[in-house]
Amino acid sequence: MSPAPVRVALLGRGTVGREVMRLLVEQADELAARVGAPVELAGVAVRRAHRHTDVPAELLTTDASGLVSRPDVDVVVEVIGGIEPARGLLLDALKAGRAVVTANKALLAEDGATLAEAANASGADLYYEASVAGAIPLLRPLRESLVGDKITRVAGIVNGTTNYILSAMAEHGTGYREALEKATELGFAEADPTADVDGLDAQAKAAILASLAFHTRVTAADVYCEGISSVTAADLVAAKAVGCTVKLLAICERVVTPGGEAGEGESVSARVYPAMIPASHPLASVGEAYNAVFVEAEAAGQLMFYGQGAGGAPTASAVLGDLVAVARNRVAGGHGPRESAYASLPIQPMGRIPTRYHISLAVQDRAGVLATIAGLFARHEVSIATVRQDMTARQMGARGARLVIVTHAAPDAALAATVAALGELDQVFGVDRVLRVENLGRPVSALGVA
Amino acid sequence: MSPAPVRVALLGRGTVGREVMRLLVEQADELAARVGAPVELAGVAVRRAHRHTDVPAELLTTDASGLVSRPDVDVVVEVIGGIEPARGLLLDALKAGRAVVTANKALLAEDGATLAEAANASGADLYYEASVAGAIPLLRPLRESLVGDKITRVAGIVNGTTNYILSAMAEHGTGYREALEKATELGFAEADPTADVDGLDAQAKAAILASLAFHTRVTAADVYCEGISSVTAADLVAAKAVGCTVKLLAICERVVTPGGEAGEGESVSARVYPAMIPASHPLASVGEAYNAVFVEAEAAGQLMFYGQGAGGAPTASAVLGDLVAVARNRVAGGHGPRESAYASLPIQPMGRIPTRYHISLAVQDRAGVLATIAGLFARHEVSIATVRQDMTARQMGARGARLVIVTHAAPDAALAATVAALGELDQVFGVDRVLRVENLGRPVSALGVA
Repeated sequence: MSPAPVRVALLGRGTVGREVMRLLVEQADELAARVGAPVELAGVAVRRAHRHTDVPAELLTTDASGLVSRPDVDVVVEVIGGIEPARGLLLDALKAGRAVVTANKALLAEDGATLAEAANASGADLYYEASVAGAIPLLRPLRESLVGDKITRVAGIVNGTTNYILSAMAEHGTGYREALEKATELGFAEADPTADVDGLDAQAKAAILASLAFHTRVTAADVYCEGISSVTAADLVAAKAVGCTVKLLAICERVVTPGGEAGEGESVSARVYPAMIPASHPLASVGEAYNAVFVEAEAAGQLMFYGQGAGGAPTASAVLGDLVAVARNRVAGGHGPRESAYASLPIQPMGRIPTRYHISLAVQDRAGVLATIAGLFARHEVSIATVRQDMTARQMGARGARLVIVTHAAPDAALAATVAALGELDQVFGVDRVLRVENLGRPVSALGVA
Repeated sequence: MSPAPVRVALLGRGTVGREVMRLLVEQADELAARVGAPVELAGVAVRRAHRHTDVPAELLTTDASGLVSRPDVDVVVEVIGGIEPARGLLLDALKAGRAVVTANKALLAEDGATLAEAANASGADLYYEASVAGAIPLLRPLRESLVGDKITRVAGIVNGTTNYILSAMAEHGTGYREALEKATELGFAEADPTADVDGLDAQAKAAILASLAFHTRVTAADVYCEGISSVTAADLVAAKAVGCTVKLLAICERVVTPGGEAGEGESVSARVYPAMIPASHPLASVGEAYNAVFVEAEAAGQLMFYGQGAGGAPTASAVLGDLVAVARNRVAGGHGPRESAYASLPIQPMGRIPTRYHISLAVQDRAGVLATIAGLFARHEVSIATVRQDMTARQMGARGARLVIVTHAAPDAALAATVAALGELDQVFGVDRVLRVENLGRPVSALGVA
């Protein structure tokens, strides 16, 4: 007796959905060999049927809810995106014991806990490799390979659009606007690039990564977020001057709190912002629209995962990998690893996170200015790593000079307060550029910070 | 009722075994949370008990075979290495339905098929993430994440010792001997470095990677292998001159054979040798004793995995990841993905594999020499990409010149025959250096090869 086929309901047929369908057909024999049973398409739910005349009519439906509840469906693959109707459809599927494979980062980052609870309650599989960093096998290593280790940090470039823009700015010396226009022209940025350039896409991914890495529920709202629209060509020049480059990072860290209001013990920080990183760091050489994620674990040490973070085929590859896993589980009568949030670590607010600032400011060029500024830093308990006069800066006039200050690590709130207070000083004409510096475990001698 | 503990027999207590024990104790609570049941050590088999007085006496045994067959053992973790007695012990364990986690690359590369068959027959899990590239989660992505995709190439740096040596040679301009001595002094090379420098360690890993990537049984004997002991400081200089560096690569490729003796269709090539690769390739910047593996798949595109390839803690991290997986499977009553060799592709011999050669030769400096040489290449059906006179070479005397020839891709046997025939020419004083060139999908304009 040949094993019963695993039947798949596909929700959505955009760029990713088309590729998933293509791979299901083209790789049918291989998939069957790998799963141990044929994998069949039970139906495809779309919004407008007339746009999909190339799909056999008997597969096509505009009734996604009806498709999900059909008794002959074993697995639901969701590539619609957005919160609703995806959430309702997936909850229905999971409650009915159907395995779910989804690429929906927004939904997972907002309400992954509800989905995970529904999956755990019915024993259904919930897989979402494609939701973060597209084709890069990242969630599975975090969920499974490193599960016997203790992850201390996940930091990476998880948005291709912004990496394309920042790479172009670094390489060609262009400004943000120009680089964004080029990215749009070449298809690396969407017509409305807000979700990418404001960091919201990376924010959702950071929430998913932090949840998995630290076994703690982290939602997008828990993730501090700044985008790249205020990064200037001058920032890239300043970064280069100190042996760095600028990348939009999603950083998830296990923080050991020595005490204070939040109490002693471990907590989690998840944040997204553009930061200077050492040019020698593997993440610095990740160009174009590529993604890369650096993982540090106590026993495993430093790991990096690199690849295409978006696009129809790469995302579909991740979806298919998940589909094979859940189909195999179904054939074997088991299920994959459960979502685990047992650690329930508290989330540290951004203000408490130790960061370093690179501050560029225009000041009066006369005796005592540095002493005044140093005193202000000291009052905010922020320690200065290096101060240098920026000789490459534009002519400031007889009375002006430009200082570049790099701090040691201090709570972000103290650094922000220092910058605000600097702006109030009579001797300071203006604080022009403030960028965080992330060493990511590498010494940066040029910055005087290790 | 709390779930029954998963009981682990540890075979071997060297560097990795000690770390595994440490993590089992230190992470006991986390492991229990992740597995859904406590993970307990049932016993530790060692060769000489008196060297392990820090292990509780009731756990210690010198009777590995007895430990493996104890009814209270659920999982056998093998970190002894070598073919026997490891093979016999693991076969006994698998036949008795016990899950096996092993880091034993030599055994898997020689006789993985027998282990896999025993595992499939009894329904036991066989996991071996730690056998290739230490802490880097690589096998799991190949086995699971990319299982819905079609892998076309796996190429990487999988031996830390040789990468340390080649990186030192490239960076400091030292020769092979000196770099090896330094590596030994710093603990990056063993007292007897043969298995590393002759490529045998990489050869075993290539066999494992090719087997997984192409669902075909590939043993170490199927993998063509050259080590790095003949690489010279001059090779590194020559590589740099054409925008390359030299790395010891393990390359596993899906080859499409257009016809001929081996018949039309797909086949597999697995090979290990030092090669010039473009300096712009992500693998080129992998320094020190780090490992990195580049994977190309039809839908996923290019992926890279980077991390520590050896060492007690990193390897133990990979072992623990596997241990959690098989323990979870046991608690859930299922098993992980089965070994699949359904594709059974033929192995291409090295002679048929299209490669490129970088050839440096000392020739007579007079008219007609180039024509003679070009004619010889043509007779062997090898196409020349670039020829240049090496002006940096040492003074050759009035009658001598040095040519550097880079070929287009041709069957390796044709290239080897060309080199042999070049040596026979009166006009050629000597063929000094021959290194293969691997573009790995990147254009190398300096080499004239795309």
